[in-house]
Amino acid sequence: MSNTTMPIELPAQEKPAVFTAQRLVRFSDCDPAGMVFYPQYFVMLNGLIEDWFTQALRVNYATLLGPRSIGLPMASLQCDFKKPSRMGESITFHLRLLRQGNRSLTLSLRCNGTLAPQTLRWSAEFVIVTTSLASGLSISIPQDIAHGIARWRTLSEEST
Amino acid sequence: MSNTTMPIELPAQEKPAVFTAQRLVRFSDCDPAGMVFYPQYFVMLNGLIEDWFTQALRVNYATLLGPRSIGLPMASLQCDFKKPSRMGESITFHLRLLRQGNRSLTLSLRCNGTLAPQTLRWSAEFVIVTTSLASGLSISIPQDIAHGIARWRTLSEEST
Amino acid sequence: MSNTTMPIELPAQEKPAVFTAQRLVRFSDCDPAGMVFYPQYFVMLNGLIEDWFTQALRVNYATLLGPRSIGLPMASLQCDFKKPSRMGESITFHLRLLRQGNRSLTLSLRCNGTLAPQTLRWSAEFVIVTTSLASGLSISIPQDIAHGIARWRTLSEEST
Amino acid sequence: MSNTTMPIELPAQEKPAVFTAQRLVRFSDCDPAGMVFYPQYFVMLNGLIEDWFTQALRVNYATLLGPRSIGLPMASLQCDFKKPSRMGESITFHLRLLRQGNRSLTLSLRCNGTLAPQTLRWSAEFVIVTTSLASGLSISIPQDIAHGIARWRTLSEEST
Repeated sequence: MSNTTMPIELPAQEKPAVFTAQRLVRFSDCDPAGMVFYPQYFVMLNGLIEDWFTQALRVNYATLLGPRSIGLPMASLQCDFKKPSRMGESITFHLRLLRQGNRSLTLSLRCNGTLAPQTLRWSAEFVIVTTSLASGLSISIPQDIAHGIARWRTLSEEST
Repeated sequence: MSNTTMPIELPAQEKPAVFTAQRLVRFSDCDPAGMVFYPQYFVMLNGLIEDWFTQALRVNYATLLGPRSIGLPMASLQCDFKKPSRMGESITFHLRLLRQGNRSLTLSLRCNGTLAPQTLRWSAEFVIVTTSLASGLSISIPQDIAHGIARWRTLSEEST
Repeated sequence: MSNTTMPIELPAQEKPAVFTAQRLVRFSDCDPAGMVFYPQYFVMLNGLIEDWFTQALRVNYATLLGPRSIGLPMASLQCDFKKPSRMGESITFHLRLLRQGNRSLTLSLRCNGTLAPQTLRWSAEFVIVTTSLASGLSISIPQDIAHGIARWRTLSEEST
Repeated sequence: MSNTTMPIELPAQEKPAVFTAQRLVRFSDCDPAGMVFYPQYFVMLNGLIEDWFTQALRVNYATLLGPRSIGLPMASLQCDFKKPSRMGESITFHLRLLRQGNRSLTLSLRCNGTLAPQTLRWSAEFVIVTTSLASGLSISIPQDIAHGIARWRTLSEEST
């Protein structure tokens, strides 16, 4: 199989598909300053990606990383932390797919307060790669993931 | 104020009040064996207690530990781990109040698989103490918590 | 192979073997009250058991749980939390082997402040079981672990 | 006090100061794939910054974030993850100061395997800001931190 990367530049959408979830900031997320300890934001982000796969793409994340031995490691990550989030607050995550490569997905995240004025807490842009957990090498995006993405984008367009 | 402890032996209930919650076992909960790493069970348990306070007792947990500076530290803990829980499973937590002291609550936890046959994963009995975060000393259980517990137990009795 | 359990009651030692380690309480260990969040104590305890295996018993923990697919899950646990530990403190862990079963080890832990007056922070007694990660079933304690324990106890007796 | 930012462009050094530390990859750092779960890398990075402050700059990190109520939040972060790190490996962190602003520090991190061939695992560039935990606003870098940095850079130059 060819190794050549021919990334799919996602066609512009008026309202690009977004996967949204809310989360309570818990005691266990917070540091001695009473704010979310930022590594915990990445634990939340991993949960968001899990739910995006299982709920939106209809590809079971636990089966993917378990029996199917397909990994989704973070390859690169760029974040800005704007305002702290505090214990007891609800925060909302917005996940968008920016670019679909042959072996990788580029996504963006915005996390803001759930309540008005919904201040931005942090934002990120990152790349995850599909890999074989056996070989540790990158693999083409599995078909069910590609189909799941296509369906999710279509459904999202229709619902706007 | 008297320091004497006069624990309330909770009157026997035919169906004692129980606070129940479900939780997906996530990738981030699991160890290299693909099972929940047990310290993570205690992070889940802390979240369950948070939700019991805020949802069932109607005492805002974040306000309690934040502005009100009242702590709820674990004083003692006894657990048995029976079966592992794996990534992607749903597990259910059942929290019961066993004994209400002047300055402490004794609770039990049962955690089982959500789906039949609902195998027991782990169980615990533990004591949490109400403390002043300023002094570090134990304090009497605040009135709103005591009222919240009484209301929760009554509502729970009526609903059976 | 017989399944019968004939636990080795460890012969009384005047000064029973103890594995000791120190640890700085870090920002990431602490909760919004500035104290160690107790689930983090169990992460520390797991690290202590790792070091006891690798350094004292000379059985490589990572090889055991990785290539050798032998698990060491916690089966039961009893703890008392006496005093909080705060960010920046050094705390000391003392691990003792209380009982060596055919398929399990019963251990005790004492954790105190490193500096005088070395106040007790928490103590625990717990049972870990040797298991096959493939089958999930308990297995006899592997010979190298049994030998490692015997050598560690002898060396420890000689050094007193 | 003036709010104007006049960043100190650090003078070029032939061998810029570097703070180095090693760390065992523990069971508790790893995910179901047996590799470091990347949020845990940021917990390690926070520990590295703690040790850089306390050991290299001689500014007690716990006192800074505790009694002195000065925060050091992450403001922005850019990382590349190159190779996984596995349970039982030793990894080495190299921290370098790239730029000293009036209210922020820009640092770089390289993390590689400790043993030859010391493959790069991940690298990062990030900005931390000095803040007042009371007001949540940025503050000028405290003098003892500025002095600590100057001394560390000088000592490091002399030792080359």
